[in-house]
Amino acid sequence: MPGTPPTRFVFLGPEGTFAEQALNSIPAAERGSRTSARSVPEALESVRAGEADAALVPLENSIGGAIGVTLDELAEGEPLVITREVVLPVEFVLAARPGTTLPRIRGVAAHPQASNQCRGWLRAHLPDAVVVDVLSNGAAAAGAATGEYDAAICAPIGAGRHRLDVLADKIADHSDAVTRFALVSRPGPPPPPTGDDVTSLAIYIAHDRVGALLSVLMELAVRGVNMSRIESRPTGETLGRYVFFLDCAGHVADVRLGEALQGLRRVCADVRFLGSYPRHRLPGMGDRPIPAPPGLSDADYADAAAWLARLRTGDLT
Amino acid sequence: MPGTPPTRFVFLGPEGTFAEQALNSIPAAERGSRTSARSVPEALESVRAGEADAALVPLENSIGGAIGVTLDELAEGEPLVITREVVLPVEFVLAARPGTTLPRIRGVAAHPQASNQCRGWLRAHLPDAVVVDVLSNGAAAAGAATGEYDAAICAPIGAGRHRLDVLADKIADHSDAVTRFALVSRPGPPPPPTGDDVTSLAIYIAHDRVGALLSVLMELAVRGVNMSRIESRPTGETLGRYVFFLDCAGHVADVRLGEALQGLRRVCADVRFLGSYPRHRLPGMGDRPIPAPPGLSDADYADAAAWLARLRTGDLT
Amino acid sequence: MPGTPPTRFVFLGPEGTFAEQALNSIPAAERGSRTSARSVPEALESVRAGEADAALVPLENSIGGAIGVTLDELAEGEPLVITREVVLPVEFVLAARPGTTLPRIRGVAAHPQASNQCRGWLRAHLPDAVVVDVLSNGAAAAGAATGEYDAAICAPIGAGRHRLDVLADKIADHSDAVTRFALVSRPGPPPPPTGDDVTSLAIYIAHDRVGALLSVLMELAVRGVNMSRIESRPTGETLGRYVFFLDCAGHVADVRLGEALQGLRRVCADVRFLGSYPRHRLPGMGDRPIPAPPGLSDADYADAAAWLARLRTGDLT
Amino acid sequence: MPGTPPTRFVFLGPEGTFAEQALNSIPAAERGSRTSARSVPEALESVRAGEADAALVPLENSIGGAIGVTLDELAEGEPLVITREVVLPVEFVLAARPGTTLPRIRGVAAHPQASNQCRGWLRAHLPDAVVVDVLSNGAAAAGAATGEYDAAICAPIGAGRHRLDVLADKIADHSDAVTRFALVSRPGPPPPPTGDDVTSLAIYIAHDRVGALLSVLMELAVRGVNMSRIESRPTGETLGRYVFFLDCAGHVADVRLGEALQGLRRVCADVRFLGSYPRHRLPGMGDRPIPAPPGLSDADYADAAAWLARLRTGDLT
Repeated sequence: MPGTPPTRFVFLGPEGTFAEQALNSIPAAERGSRTSARSVPEALESVRAGEADAALVPLENSIGGAIGVTLDELAEGEPLVITREVVLPVEFVLAARPGTTLPRIRGVAAHPQASNQCRGWLRAHLPDAVVVDVLSNGAAAAGAATGEYDAAICAPIGAGRHRLDVLADKIADHSDAVTRFALVSRPGPPPPPTGDDVTSLAIYIAHDRVGALLSVLMELAVRGVNMSRIESRPTGETLGRYVFFLDCAGHVADVRLGEALQGLRRVCADVRFLGSYPRHRLPGMGDRPIPAPPGLSDADYADAAAWLARLRTGDLT
Repeated sequence: MPGTPPTRFVFLGPEGTFAEQALNSIPAAERGSRTSARSVPEALESVRAGEADAALVPLENSIGGAIGVTLDELAEGEPLVITREVVLPVEFVLAARPGTTLPRIRGVAAHPQASNQCRGWLRAHLPDAVVVDVLSNGAAAAGAATGEYDAAICAPIGAGRHRLDVLADKIADHSDAVTRFALVSRPGPPPPPTGDDVTSLAIYIAHDRVGALLSVLMELAVRGVNMSRIESRPTGETLGRYVFFLDCAGHVADVRLGEALQGLRRVCADVRFLGSYPRHRLPGMGDRPIPAPPGLSDADYADAAAWLARLRTGDLT
Repeated sequence: MPGTPPTRFVFLGPEGTFAEQALNSIPAAERGSRTSARSVPEALESVRAGEADAALVPLENSIGGAIGVTLDELAEGEPLVITREVVLPVEFVLAARPGTTLPRIRGVAAHPQASNQCRGWLRAHLPDAVVVDVLSNGAAAAGAATGEYDAAICAPIGAGRHRLDVLADKIADHSDAVTRFALVSRPGPPPPPTGDDVTSLAIYIAHDRVGALLSVLMELAVRGVNMSRIESRPTGETLGRYVFFLDCAGHVADVRLGEALQGLRRVCADVRFLGSYPRHRLPGMGDRPIPAPPGLSDADYADAAAWLARLRTGDLT
Repeated sequence: MPGTPPTRFVFLGPEGTFAEQALNSIPAAERGSRTSARSVPEALESVRAGEADAALVPLENSIGGAIGVTLDELAEGEPLVITREVVLPVEFVLAARPGTTLPRIRGVAAHPQASNQCRGWLRAHLPDAVVVDVLSNGAAAAGAATGEYDAAICAPIGAGRHRLDVLADKIADHSDAVTRFALVSRPGPPPPPTGDDVTSLAIYIAHDRVGALLSVLMELAVRGVNMSRIESRPTGETLGRYVFFLDCAGHVADVRLGEALQGLRRVCADVRFLGSYPRHRLPGMGDRPIPAPPGLSDADYADAAAWLARLRTGDLT
């Protein structure tokens, strides 16, 4: 039911990956049921089907970029909305069965994106080890646990779950890498505005010309709406036809964001609302929320609306 | 009283000028009282003071440009609104007392703007006549009537009123010159939209930089509001501080013009609404009204507003 | 000859007006010949015909706005260029024949714009005097000198020239009113850049739509060119067809202004260059010149041009 | 040596994938040596190191979107340039060892993106088969050849190379899916303009605000440069810091694209030129090249440049 807090959670599995770790940071999820899904489409499908109330899936990674499959799944099919974001520092560890020591490691299982992010460490500490590509961080940990591989690059939670020893932690080359996850539910009233919110949209523009995208940005700029992210994805029709994913600062309940949304609705071929939710700021990361520029606060809007209403009745005082 | 049709009219005199001729084209004025004023400020002051209900004053001339004093008077003091425009073809005649013939004309009285517009004709037909500057077209006709000057360049109505013979008509070099007049009243509900209306504004921008004016034009462009006129006038403070007079296509009651007005209210230092009124189109002059571009009709606005209202309640259907 | 300093000057007369006073502030004019012209067209025509080297004519007044006839004359006919501007504080005096005292003044001669600017003073000090409109400030002084009128509102120079006593000075309601004059010559190399220059243009846009003017402002904005003035004037064809007069900060020799000018040339129906010349700043009036924003200095342009030249040869260092 | 046609080619392997098929469509590659690389970084590294002259790597897929690793590798490290693009229809086949029939297939090896694109076909024709994720299309074919899997979803070239029978062809759900490949070399003079070219760029903007991206688009729009693609990628620093990959219509040798590039160089934190090369148009796909809008042809630019040069010398004819 709309408004009812979710109790049945699904996350992108397997167990022991960052998605599970992100889910654990949500208080309601600790009390609810938690199921892993084999893929993002499967996780979102279970929400659409009503088998789960909310799915925790990755949206983007500061190293690897957007998670295309998540964007595509949100842009198509029955509407879903993001109700919460979780930004998680990505900490990779080198984990192995108890008793293993570095010099004895010959083969390391890793998801290609993970080994890519730890290239520097591997070159320095395991120059002779062979890296074997596997399909997830969780699979890497599982493979090390069964002895198929000598060691795994995985998330801390994966090491714990598979009872592996952590031989080295924080082995990623970029120590401040993060992954951003979204908690996705069936449509319902958005969480109340906090003053530091994000609104996510998928927009389709009639033509891929600079003029069309310029129109979109002008609709935002005229209302002073900042955009913290823009991603283009092919629509699957032909090259050169894109859907754009935007993250805008503000909440659908804000007057100026509302006016901008109406503008986008009018100038775009289609706009899909993907949710308004509180921005998750890690300590020390990112800017503070930007106050409304002069003339663009809710009060300014209210003043202008009242003035227009007076004009229309002939009251020019 | 607001809504009551005006019955007491004042016009920029003296009698026998184009302003009186323009006033005669307004049906209500034929039945009401008509008084001449010595200046635009005097005409408008009598409306402000409640001595007249409406003043007919010139706004701009297709040859001479804006009538600065009218703009200044509208921009300052107690608010007034334009409720109607009258576009009048400017036809100059050469008039003289009965019995006068062209070869005998030595001195021609004319307002400088009038003689300027008839330069070609004067050079061709009265190359040796001396043109004497006088302060209005009506004064020229009056001077010819008293015999002070041999002839006058004046409006047809001026010749008739002073019982002069028309020696030559349509003597202006630009045969399609027009003057645009405004009927100005105390504030009240604007006349209803006709689908082909003009909204006049005086806007003050914080700085005279290209960026500030660009912001104003963007507020209009984003709502597809066309601008048929822009005039800058100094504010009287110092050089480089301007008030801009805009004529926009549309009516204050139109949704998109209303949104644009609110935008101007928010980004400008000040906006003074000068009225919404039907466009007066002379046969064969000017373009037809331009239909709303895709996405900018009132229906498109209503659709977008309904969509936003649904989003805010969580209804994404 | 181009480059030769002008020696024969003409100014908008009659003698004793602000234009003569402005001309006197130009050192070269003190040594050259000085002739008055009866009108702006006459003054400019004498330059076009080679009878004078330079004409000093009014461009705009901080109270009355643009001097339309000057703009029109610059926009049409053989090209002329502004080589210098003079900004002159407008100080009106009440002048009368020696021996006249305030209480005896019944009739005051004044140009309508002058009496308009001194309304407050007149109401306070000569509430019963009749103001008689005359055609110039110089004519007012002349009329007082002949005894036709008891007194005149005129420029200080007019009082001196007609041997009138100044009964009151600085009688204008706005004490900081100024008039801006232009020194106009036949085309030749512009004066060298000073770092604080103005470039004047007359531009014709294909349509009077907001989009066309927006394009013009975008050409300027993209190059960071500020606009200190924009005036619209009818083209004399029909209402709603305008020529725009722009004053831009910068010199035609500046790289970024040059690029902007090329852009205007390409997007406008026509562009007429009216000169680049040093800005005349009165002490305490107006802002200091604004330095080029980041990325828009001549050095930034040179860097970008060199980079592009390298790219085109395949040098990506 | 710059200008020398490449003779040593490397492509993203393993053998039997679409990249090899794309390389085969380049005449020069048929005569040169062809080596497969295990990853995009490895392929590009061999070009940077001088071990190969050109690398054929995937840029984007009409279903899956940008190939992030390729973009990242082009944006960082020693500069490389794209000299040619190849757009290849993506045709998936179901292949198996000779003698295999559909009813006997239990396990199908496929790269996750491939199986994702053939979901509809699999559901209809192999509803009970288990899909096993492998790391490339080539690996799928190889696995089917060794008997590890009953069948593979792979490229036609992969079936041939591993002597598999094609049990079904064109099994992708979107029959017009394509992949776009780039031929990448060390920097050198770009191929000559053809009138239908693409210029690829990586741009870094100072801030991720809507205003900054708007500035970029305005630099393009003012010069009438169309953008056929925009991708954002994280810079690896923190979330919300992006590099944008743009494909613009035109060639670095074009005047207007040159001016736009200079503008980007000035307003962006950094611009990396990734090459100008002929657009590859598949029959029936995509729009024809768009002629320069009015005022934006090379001839218009030349006219404006000549006009400016005249202005600067004082020649206003």
